[in-house]
Amino acid sequence: MIISSSSNERIKHARRVREGRERDLIFIEGERLVGECVASGLKLHACFTAAEPSESQQRLVEQVSCPVFHLAESVLESLGDTMSTQGIIVIAERPWPTLDRLFEGTAPLLLGLDRIQDPGNMGTLVRTAEAAGVNGILSFAGSADAFAPKTLRSSMGSAFRLPILPGVSGLGAIETCRSRGLKCVVATGEADTSHYDHDWTQPTMLILGNEGRGASAEVMKACDARVRIPLHAPVESLNVAAAGAAILFEAVRQRQG
Amino acid sequence: MIISSSSNERIKHARRVREGRERDLIFIEGERLVGECVASGLKLHACFTAAEPSESQQRLVEQVSCPVFHLAESVLESLGDTMSTQGIIVIAERPWPTLDRLFEGTAPLLLGLDRIQDPGNMGTLVRTAEAAGVNGILSFAGSADAFAPKTLRSSMGSAFRLPILPGVSGLGAIETCRSRGLKCVVATGEADTSHYDHDWTQPTMLILGNEGRGASAEVMKACDARVRIPLHAPVESLNVAAAGAAILFEAVRQRQG
Repeated sequence: MIISSSSNERIKHARRVREGRERDLIFIEGERLVGECVASGLKLHACFTAAEPSESQQRLVEQVSCPVFHLAESVLESLGDTMSTQGIIVIAERPWPTLDRLFEGTAPLLLGLDRIQDPGNMGTLVRTAEAAGVNGILSFAGSADAFAPKTLRSSMGSAFRLPILPGVSGLGAIETCRSRGLKCVVATGEADTSHYDHDWTQPTMLILGNEGRGASAEVMKACDARVRIPLHAPVESLNVAAAGAAILFEAVRQRQG
Repeated sequence: MIISSSSNERIKHARRVREGRERDLIFIEGERLVGECVASGLKLHACFTAAEPSESQQRLVEQVSCPVFHLAESVLESLGDTMSTQGIIVIAERPWPTLDRLFEGTAPLLLGLDRIQDPGNMGTLVRTAEAAGVNGILSFAGSADAFAPKTLRSSMGSAFRLPILPGVSGLGAIETCRSRGLKCVVATGEADTSHYDHDWTQPTMLILGNEGRGASAEVMKACDARVRIPLHAPVESLNVAAAGAAILFEAVRQRQG
């Protein structure tokens, strides 16, 4: 059966998920992301595809363990989050990592994100963090949703695999990390120590702050150390995702040493 | 006098500049970018602002050395490139750096961009490059315009100061750099050498390739060396602006001794 109306209840529900109005569900669009989602073993609730899916879409449909709905083209287009339809959408359960998973290993490296606003920056940071071997992300309250459609397009599937704890209090996260033996280090232009001179081989949470304002004053104050990336004048700051990449891959360098 | 019609010839011309249809002119919007543009000494052709500019806008208006036009609110809104009006717009001459400026110093570090598509990535790379002390950028044919409004919002004024040579042939750029004694090094997941193990203290052009496809086969082949950023599986690549930040700040680390 083909769903031919945008006011079908399932479609309306999927649209609410897309808009982030269903707390426990996430909206995943396009062959690449759906493939990554299936491979990561997230629990799926529904799959939407065209009346006549392409061969590659059909292969994905055969791998999903949930009801599959075929949509008229106009309905599939109206449901999509992107300008042109990606042909396949799944609704999945939002992953909730356990705190213990974040602290595995002898010298965990965590990333704390303090009110990162831009979905593209958030997604790029998630992808970079996984690539740098970060244990997981503590996303402080007020940050963009790591599972919003636009964020997922930037994180390229890393959000399905990397433990991400959303909506945590910054001070609470710092306290928890410290009680587990981690140093909390915030990146700020006002630090005296360069990120090259910091010892990243210790168990650490690196904290990056909001695009315009940096980390909040209370988070800054609660941290054990501050680092800055040395920048050629007159540049005063980097894009936060670029700053994250520069610091995390300095940590990788020191840790592989 | 206040321009109250969107079909005024000056407004139509400014719109063509905004759309990138006037090769020698660029469109700069918002107090921050206009301020950076004025400070960098670019030659200005026209300034557009509200009938009653704010105090900070008025201070900028007093600094521009070009005709100033006051626009009715609806006209200013229709001319802007962003959702909400930024209150001030200037039309400036596109800067054309001389080749010699790119090769100043004893060990120049250049960035070659091979068909970078996304304006946000392009702008972030320009900002990161200036912050890392790069001499200038060779933007190979097929890359996004470093002076398009969206790119400028990401580069935060760095594009006004850093020499950027657009539309060059990739092979031509490599040949020119080599004739000036630079090593041409391309970032690719297929390299054997990690970017940590490469010697960045030599005169170098680092080449970053297209978001999806990387550098072109002919550019790859013409380069002197290939480097990869070591990534934790299963991540296969970084966002290109994140990759640029990781590599350029490894170069900064090595160069600062």
